[in-house]
Amino acid sequence: MTISAVGVGPVTGVRAGDLFDNRKALMAANLHRFTQQGISWTKTAGADAIVLSGGYVDDEDLGDEITYTGEGGRDSLTGKQVKDQEMVRGNEAMQRSFQLGQPIRVIRGASHGSEFAPQTGYQYGGMYRVDSIWHEPSIYGPRIIRFKLVRLDDDDAWSPYEKVLQRALDGQPMVAAQRREGFVSRVVRDTRVTIAVKTMYEGRCQICSGTVPTPAGPYSEGAHIRPLGRPHDGADHLPNILCLCPNDHVSVDRGAVFLDDDLAVRNMDGQTVTQLTRRDAHSIDMESVRYHRDHIFGSAD
Amino acid sequence: MTISAVGVGPVTGVRAGDLFDNRKALMAANLHRFTQQGISWTKTAGADAIVLSGGYVDDEDLGDEITYTGEGGRDSLTGKQVKDQEMVRGNEAMQRSFQLGQPIRVIRGASHGSEFAPQTGYQYGGMYRVDSIWHEPSIYGPRIIRFKLVRLDDDDAWSPYEKVLQRALDGQPMVAAQRREGFVSRVVRDTRVTIAVKTMYEGRCQICSGTVPTPAGPYSEGAHIRPLGRPHDGADHLPNILCLCPNDHVSVDRGAVFLDDDLAVRNMDGQTVTQLTRRDAHSIDMESVRYHRDHIFGSAD
Repeated sequence: MTISAVGVGPVTGVRAGDLFDNRKALMAANLHRFTQQGISWTKTAGADAIVLSGGYVDDEDLGDEITYTGEGGRDSLTGKQVKDQEMVRGNEAMQRSFQLGQPIRVIRGASHGSEFAPQTGYQYGGMYRVDSIWHEPSIYGPRIIRFKLVRLDDDDAWSPYEKVLQRALDGQPMVAAQRREGFVSRVVRDTRVTIAVKTMYEGRCQICSGTVPTPAGPYSEGAHIRPLGRPHDGADHLPNILCLCPNDHVSVDRGAVFLDDDLAVRNMDGQTVTQLTRRDAHSIDMESVRYHRDHIFGSAD
Repeated sequence: MTISAVGVGPVTGVRAGDLFDNRKALMAANLHRFTQQGISWTKTAGADAIVLSGGYVDDEDLGDEITYTGEGGRDSLTGKQVKDQEMVRGNEAMQRSFQLGQPIRVIRGASHGSEFAPQTGYQYGGMYRVDSIWHEPSIYGPRIIRFKLVRLDDDDAWSPYEKVLQRALDGQPMVAAQRREGFVSRVVRDTRVTIAVKTMYEGRCQICSGTVPTPAGPYSEGAHIRPLGRPHDGADHLPNILCLCPNDHVSVDRGAVFLDDDLAVRNMDGQTVTQLTRRDAHSIDMESVRYHRDHIFGSAD
């Protein structure tokens, strides 16, 4: 048995669209570490690749955007979800890649059954970032952990990863910054309504009551309580949006705090951190609050 | 004289590529408020459009990415920069659009002299976001304020702006969230080296010494002191990167704090806020620190 040379990021010589006969061939090409599991990972580096092979009926594949279900808790004979999925092993590694902002190689198998899957064997589909993590009951009841992946358009920017990381840690300069160097790991999206909310609170955070002063005045972000877009489909209206500082925006989006029914802000230990500041004209959608609590909060515990 | 119906965002019926005979025609089409000035703006709503017409030799137009020089301080006869540009009027409105995350319509005139300019008259080029603001000496000496604009790929997502804003303020739901609804106003870009820095400090902010706890552990961002990419071309290596919480990342990027030569962190009033935390293995590039101080800090004062 050989030591795996699998790393994070693109593999030199392999392009999106390349075909492979089987899981062994994927391993031999350094695209994936294992022949059985869907998630390729190590404890220190996080996840580096996933295989989509039709394991979950709920998995959604729109090409540039994928919903992927975590591992564990399924009966090996029936495929039914019999236990809650936990944030351990491959799932935890996916979370780590999300946290660090690392890319994931996506590979589709013929059995995946989407229009993007190959007729036979496996096809490398390029690099994706983990956009978000949440949890929900499976159709059988027990909880599954889900990952939304978004395609990166700069597949080549990261190669070769390990050598460059070592150079960085040695304090050596990288090659001159390229236009597409690196990739987007966090995106703040504005809509007409987030601008209205930021204006309403004059940039003051509804959680910490602080501001981030800048030469242009207080900086804040509009945060959707129930996230916009697939699969959450939160509404882009005032009752679903908070005016937050970037730190508290991250806390809400990543499920580190939640709102209780009295709009107290509570942390991962269930302790009340503060009371949400709220203008009279700004009613909060309690369905959004509950959705966030049930699906986003603690995603990962 | 009619009241201007010019708003923020796309104009119904006008598509990128549409041609107009002259400035009056742009005004009549509700694309721009004025017939002379480059920046179209109001005090409350910020800037809504700019015209590129070859006013500044340093303006750079790469199509999807534009460097635009602010207004003011030029001798009206010679065109020479005779006074520092100030963050007032149109410049301040551009800064407000940056702060709020609002789109800017870009119009190119034949006199602009780039490959993207029309042969005659004016051409609407689509919507852009203000990506960053900085300042530098003009070729004549006095300071000019510069704006980097990046093309949005979702020109249609914002129309019609005012009606929808009013609906939002009235608490009425928007149309169901579209995939491209709204647009990106802040982007956190990761490179191999930012990941190394975040790992080195275990997610603890080098400015406030705090962490943003999440289910995945402390969240932090890698911040380039001298920005990556055109026109700053900061290096993507360890001495040019700090591990910061999102709030302090915004403060550094938007010029609200600077580092002095002793690595004390100072605010817009020149007061020392704190001392930068730094590991021995993490030397800081003082040229980057000076570049940030000279070009990014207080961009706007």
